[in-house]
Amino acid sequence: MADRLSQVRRRLDDFNANGLLLSSLPNIRWACGFTGSNGLLLVTEDTATFVTDGRYTEQARQEVEGADVLIASNGLLEGLLDEGFVEDLGRVVIQADDVTLAAYHQIEENASAVDWQPRSGVLTSLVGTKDETEIERIRAAQALTEEVFAEVLEGLRPGRTEREIAAEITYGHLRRGAEAMAFDPIVASGPNAARPHARPTDRRLRTGDMVVLDMGAMLEGYASDMTRTVAIGEPREEAVEGYRVVREAQQCALDAARSGITGKELDATARSYIEDAGLGEYFAHGLGHGIGLEVHEWPRVSHSVDETLPAGACVTIEPGVYVAEEEFGVRIEDIVVLEPDGCRNLTRADKELKVVES
Amino acid sequence: MADRLSQVRRRLDDFNANGLLLSSLPNIRWACGFTGSNGLLLVTEDTATFVTDGRYTEQARQEVEGADVLIASNGLLEGLLDEGFVEDLGRVVIQADDVTLAAYHQIEENASAVDWQPRSGVLTSLVGTKDETEIERIRAAQALTEEVFAEVLEGLRPGRTEREIAAEITYGHLRRGAEAMAFDPIVASGPNAARPHARPTDRRLRTGDMVVLDMGAMLEGYASDMTRTVAIGEPREEAVEGYRVVREAQQCALDAARSGITGKELDATARSYIEDAGLGEYFAHGLGHGIGLEVHEWPRVSHSVDETLPAGACVTIEPGVYVAEEEFGVRIEDIVVLEPDGCRNLTRADKELKVVES
Repeated sequence: MADRLSQVRRRLDDFNANGLLLSSLPNIRWACGFTGSNGLLLVTEDTATFVTDGRYTEQARQEVEGADVLIASNGLLEGLLDEGFVEDLGRVVIQADDVTLAAYHQIEENASAVDWQPRSGVLTSLVGTKDETEIERIRAAQALTEEVFAEVLEGLRPGRTEREIAAEITYGHLRRGAEAMAFDPIVASGPNAARPHARPTDRRLRTGDMVVLDMGAMLEGYASDMTRTVAIGEPREEAVEGYRVVREAQQCALDAARSGITGKELDATARSYIEDAGLGEYFAHGLGHGIGLEVHEWPRVSHSVDETLPAGACVTIEPGVYVAEEEFGVRIEDIVVLEPDGCRNLTRADKELKVVES
Repeated sequence: MADRLSQVRRRLDDFNANGLLLSSLPNIRWACGFTGSNGLLLVTEDTATFVTDGRYTEQARQEVEGADVLIASNGLLEGLLDEGFVEDLGRVVIQADDVTLAAYHQIEENASAVDWQPRSGVLTSLVGTKDETEIERIRAAQALTEEVFAEVLEGLRPGRTEREIAAEITYGHLRRGAEAMAFDPIVASGPNAARPHARPTDRRLRTGDMVVLDMGAMLEGYASDMTRTVAIGEPREEAVEGYRVVREAQQCALDAARSGITGKELDATARSYIEDAGLGEYFAHGLGHGIGLEVHEWPRVSHSVDETLPAGACVTIEPGVYVAEEEFGVRIEDIVVLEPDGCRNLTRADKELKVVES
């Protein structure tokens, strides 16, 4: 943690600023360990002050490392101002992608002597580069999800609804100690699987369906995210072929993934395989996204990303095809850590096409 | 829906503006019916245009009422600009409490000819005043929660963990068709119940505990929110008295609740009862909050709210006491609709102190 705060501090020079006021809760958690739902972290050359409200007095004292804790009774920024922490700082950077216009107007009104500097992506590359402790937490969250997936697989059969299965996915995670779901699970069967962002419906699974199951949860603050696609009874030839193409495309990306490659290049490895198989038009989203304290983080892995991916980034690799006219969809998703010589796959769940007996 | 759009349109005059660009998804849902996760709604004197991306083509056409649907392939605002819907409008209001600084900079950059006017609470009072259809949906969501609560009550006994019970609360809602939880359930027992925003832990319920159960889910877009406090085995005298005080305080507020009262006055009805009973210092939060398409909406009901509450507002009434030194807490929460002559309570669950056999 202490090391993280000194990394944050180095950003002051980059911005030529005297202070950095963090408002993004996942970033605050990363920098000083606080896990509650209300707080601000002010970092200067010599000081770090975390401010929260009275509900979190005890929790902040237990969790926060490397920063003084201030309990504000009448607004967080007001608390910092009352204690004289802000007024004379001069140039202070705030997080433009986190602060709303309304909040900013209030900040300006309350502390007009400060030269507020809204900046985007203030901690993006720091937070996006994971250390081994963080990687281990993502792996543990992913392992939990794999356990739930194995259990859910046992319960798949014709006649059950998408919604029932989604409820069991959530229950399975929470029962095993997940803090929350990272996102509402996707259970998309038959024609619904042809929609990449389908929500679970009351549709009952039928023989011949492909079922896309996409799930992830939060464990010790870190997210998992995994997708598998299974068949209910013997699948049609097009679906088997679609599955083969997506699986091979994912393998192309897994083989190519390493730090130093651009998001665009990595996306292209899977995309070109799918295009060569004639299914390019059905892969209508990016290849993946960063994951960590949030389920969607920097860096994205897509055709529009020209920047190189850093060592230590954890990203999903999730190609898919969604074929509305054939009423099926396939997506396969793992999480990998990028390293100079390749990647480490944090996902162990099998990728043979599983055919559920019907 | 058509009526709602004309209400939105009337706001143009209030702001002396030619256009209103809504970005808040719950507000967009309220105004035109769209339930997806990406969209903008532009309302002018003569037109209403809803723009989303290709994932929602079919869904937008099915759901959106009263507005033309535009599918943008390269950014939502860009889509509106490309079609010439924005450039010549002049003064356009945007939602200051929804738009981040980063998003605003992009808006300004992409459409610098427009006179953008950030405003807070653009639809607040419209959305905060519910019609009968909406009230019925909140009631239905609350009825679902009451069903789950009754089931969960059956499973309460010493030795079970807070986390297990919270997982069952979530599962119970999702299994019955809730779209999602409105918030992560609170199950706070013994000393944990003395923290108003406790998260479920691995603590096992024990004889002598008071257990605060706070839960709510989304059904057809609308939220429920209910808290009950139960005793595991015969509770200590202080806890029984605390329960009695909170229940009576809630009744004071239920008796006083009507449209036209200020948030402060309504808060004071319960607060003064608790103060008179000598427990004032232990009631450290506001009395309640608006609820509807979001679980926390305008209007708040607290000592700092001088505005009067409108007819049709749905608000929670949730006094509590949190007594750390006696290791117990109590909160009781219902949802009511405010009317000129009083309020309608949408919550039916019993409020006798329930003592679970241990």
